Amino acid sequence: MRLAIVFGGESFEHEISIVSAIALKKVIFCELIYIFCDKNRNFYLIPTPEINSKRFSSGKYLNDTKLTLKQGGFYFKKLFKESRVEFDAAINIIHGADGEDGKIAALFDFFGISYIGPNIEASAISYNKFFTKLYAKAIGVKTVDYEIVSKDNRNISLPLPVIVKPLRLGSSIGVSVVREPKEIEYALDTAFEFDDEAIVEPFIENVAEYNIAGCKIGDSIRYSIIEEPEKELILDFEKKYLDFSRTAKVYEARLTEIRHEEIRKNFKLIYEPLFEGAIIRCDFFLIKNKIYLNEINPNPGSLANYLFEEFNSLVQDLAPSLPKRKKITVEYKYINSIQSAKGKA
Amino acid sequence: MRLAIVFGGESFEHEISIVSAIALKKVIFCELIYIFCDKNRNFYLIPTPEINSKRFSSGKYLNDTKLTLKQGGFYFKKLFKESRVEFDAAINIIHGADGEDGKIAALFDFFGISYIGPNIEASAISYNKFFTKLYAKAIGVKTVDYEIVSKDNRNISLPLPVIVKPLRLGSSIGVSVVREPKEIEYALDTAFEFDDEAIVEPFIENVAEYNIAGCKIGDSIRYSIIEEPEKELILDFEKKYLDFSRTAKVYEARLTEIRHEEIRKNFKLIYEPLFEGAIIRCDFFLIKNKIYLNEINPNPGSLANYLFEEFNSLVQDLAPSLPKRKKITVEYKYINSIQSAKGKA
Repeated sequence: MRLAIVFGGESFEHEISIVSAIALKKVIFCELIYIFCDKNRNFYLIPTPEINSKRFSSGKYLNDTKLTLKQGGFYFKKLFKESRVEFDAAINIIHGADGEDGKIAALFDFFGISYIGPNIEASAISYNKFFTKLYAKAIGVKTVDYEIVSKDNRNISLPLPVIVKPLRLGSSIGVSVVREPKEIEYALDTAFEFDDEAIVEPFIENVAEYNIAGCKIGDSIRYSIIEEPEKELILDFEKKYLDFSRTAKVYEARLTEIRHEEIRKNFKLIYEPLFEGAIIRCDFFLIKNKIYLNEINPNPGSLANYLFEEFNSLVQDLAPSLPKRKKITVEYKYINSIQSAKGKA
Repeated sequence: MRLAIVFGGESFEHEISIVSAIALKKVIFCELIYIFCDKNRNFYLIPTPEINSKRFSSGKYLNDTKLTLKQGGFYFKKLFKESRVEFDAAINIIHGADGEDGKIAALFDFFGISYIGPNIEASAISYNKFFTKLYAKAIGVKTVDYEIVSKDNRNISLPLPVIVKPLRLGSSIGVSVVREPKEIEYALDTAFEFDDEAIVEPFIENVAEYNIAGCKIGDSIRYSIIEEPEKELILDFEKKYLDFSRTAKVYEARLTEIRHEEIRKNFKLIYEPLFEGAIIRCDFFLIKNKIYLNEINPNPGSLANYLFEEFNSLVQDLAPSLPKRKKITVEYKYINSIQSAKGKA
């Protein structure tokens, strides 16, 4: 099997995508091809043995093979011939904008590339935290209270402390905890640097958090273990950066069988059928004995490989069983019948 | 001003997009460029004076200039040089799949093309009728009851008569009215030919329907007149086809000032800020003196030009004031600092 890892993108998380992509080399054992989307959204084929983060920061990748996206895949020129980069499926590991907002999904759908990652709808729902709330509620998954603020309406009515997040970033960038009224303005300004809208939620001190990942293969979901991640108020960018290169396995959280099943059940409700084709991680809170969805990560750091017992086989089983797109047949039935009626056929 | 009309697409509504695109020639008076997306999703530059529907049904367009989408726009080769097709903005007039499901929006966003049309989020919300329901409810716009059925769960609990629609098509394709229990199976089978899920709603005989279109330019929304369309149970494809070529003006519905304002208010709630950049048409029902959203058409047939008093100036005012995208600056701050800490910088 040959998989193409697509990473980079015009995203605030461009750098952590590079780290994430390189980490996958340690946990997927088949032929890997690396396709880099640079900050100008040009694609390059990076020689796998030579991949390292400095190749990108130094601009050395600019000497690598430039690719063009066209019907059927990525193409490159060699003398007077155009060749396609051959692979069985792509892995979308672009974090944040481009990768998680539906752009890469749409590009791959349009150009006929089979991929591991969220589709357009799944991206739109998980990238916009307001839509995530609506979706979760509709399918019966609890979420904490929230309100949406915007540059024009900066009024927060939830009692402090609250957590303020840009509405659309898939990371801890631009996120602040507000404990005192005087901190509100700064928190909003910070969030509005990244988006015109922000979401405000109650901040719950020392809330228990549980992370679970999984994906559907055939008729059933393969779940990861459930991790209780180490408490960090908010991951700063540097910690997040390290977090995204994780490949060391973690310990399973101590949970009763009932709680364990409840978390899986909530994951399944969220996953099916919206996220089919993707390996996602859901982060849940446990508040007063009830499970609440905190966040859906449709492209988690290094695909949350560290949560799975058998990550390599998970990826290699998923790649050949990705959702098939239905080809729509276009016929010129009506135009032909009208032409024919006009005597022009 | 030079506008590029992008039409066709791999869509069940491919043909009506052609009709829609040709109709725009009669109502937009500036330089128009026609870019055709054929059923294989290859792009062609069609000579504007020679455009007619037969060019596409006969395959004659295959001799026109083939285009490649790359950073900055559509390009074509001429001898050994590559040139860009120059225009101020594109108009996405692909109906249904590709045009209304977020693919074209994503392509244009990714490749830096300014366009009139729904963005990725707006497409995802309006293309999926379940998401439209969630969105309408959240912003305070009423919709009629509904339930979602799927190939695995064909159970309808709403009382008959009901109307069954594929969850994701932006047209009357695959839609049936069910009056008798014996008609249920056929209606579901019809819908499931087009989507794995369907939405079921009460069918209300002779319900009053009002259509309104509009778009935001600067700080205010420019509304069309409100039309009470002629009653047709469901437009069949041929009628729809004719409908999409409409350019003759229509008469305004007779409404009280209060009702008129109420319909505008509902339109505004739906439009802002999700649909900014698009000219959309919303179809409302009036049931027991209350306004309900029936459908959002983010790319209505020939852009609902026939509803506007001043369609030409609407388009030419909108094109230069389309939402600007924020460029994300990618810096290699963390990679550089890590390299430097390792003594490799």
